[in-house]
Amino acid sequence: MTDSIAASPEPRLNRRQAAKIRTRQKVLEAARSLFAERGYEPATIRDIAKGAGMSTGAVFANFQDKAELFEAVLTEDMTRLAEVVEAGAPQGEPVRDRLVSALSAGYHSSLDQLPLFQAIVARSWFQPLAAEMRARAATRKLQLAIGAILQDAVSRGEISQDADLRLLVELIWDAYLSNYRRAAYDNWDAQALSDHVARQIDVILAGALAAR
Amino acid sequence: MTDSIAASPEPRLNRRQAAKIRTRQKVLEAARSLFAERGYEPATIRDIAKGAGMSTGAVFANFQDKAELFEAVLTEDMTRLAEVVEAGAPQGEPVRDRLVSALSAGYHSSLDQLPLFQAIVARSWFQPLAAEMRARAATRKLQLAIGAILQDAVSRGEISQDADLRLLVELIWDAYLSNYRRAAYDNWDAQALSDHVARQIDVILAGALAAR
Repeated sequence: MTDSIAASPEPRLNRRQAAKIRTRQKVLEAARSLFAERGYEPATIRDIAKGAGMSTGAVFANFQDKAELFEAVLTEDMTRLAEVVEAGAPQGEPVRDRLVSALSAGYHSSLDQLPLFQAIVARSWFQPLAAEMRARAATRKLQLAIGAILQDAVSRGEISQDADLRLLVELIWDAYLSNYRRAAYDNWDAQALSDHVARQIDVILAGALAAR
Repeated sequence: MTDSIAASPEPRLNRRQAAKIRTRQKVLEAARSLFAERGYEPATIRDIAKGAGMSTGAVFANFQDKAELFEAVLTEDMTRLAEVVEAGAPQGEPVRDRLVSALSAGYHSSLDQLPLFQAIVARSWFQPLAAEMRARAATRKLQLAIGAILQDAVSRGEISQDADLRLLVELIWDAYLSNYRRAAYDNWDAQALSDHVARQIDVILAGALAAR
């Protein structure tokens, strides 16, 4: 029984449903390339459809508009990144090292998507409120991953009880994000970004580490 | 002699030069409004010209392209903001208070230009390298103003000699900028932003303050 399930990864999908999922995935891939190449505003549904080898009608059958398409790409990428970051924090290490490993894993897994990342951050600064709220929900998992590492350090007595964890998460997240700019314009690689975020984390945590 | 100069503020401009400056200023104001309203990409030279009540030819007589126009707006705004921030740091106060006052002055003077600010940060994430380098030159004055306050604190023994001032400036600047997002999407006013940046500065400086 277990074997037969393992051999057939999508047992509940009929052929039509599977085709629909493949189409959706094709549109998402084409959108991802075009957003990375041009940014949000200049990318058109027409060119996304062209890139996916289908009609604009077929795109609209899957996504209401460009904004929804963009959010689907964003959510997919942020979910993947959150998994990488969570998996990248070795248990039992000091909080500083756990954070650095986690964020370094994030850089290493995402730099091949750098232009898309830039497009995502750019749009996050100039978008309708509803879109911003959905984008925040998509990045929340990443901030929760950082928060969980800090929370664990509090329970182990590494970070003092009265530290403002929300503020720390925010500062670490801002530093993490802002470093992508160095990759975009100064050619920093994932290792250089990781070394830099390590220094930033040392500064940010300095006042929160419990006295020994 | 002094009086006659004071009474005639632009003594070296003939009428034609003065007209040219007024035209340029009119274009800049129209561009500023349109960038604030739509963001960089969707703003067109045609609509900027329309807003200024002149032909696109007249716009192009003053600016090579939209990118140059955007940079002129950016430079003007950042120069003004740097002056406000510099003037906002009272001499002789503790470094933390000087920084908070300076950045608070920045928030108070810039929130009426919030959508333009958002457009500037958005574009900073997705623009050609040469444009990014010029944009950095325009914001450098602001970072220098923060750096000068920290440097002064080092010479007064308030911040320890071995603190990495560049890293501190970067973290403070990132925090300052990122807070505009709260104004844009969460309706924070200048006072709320100032209170928040104060808490961020406390965290960032915690490890750098010299032991007493």
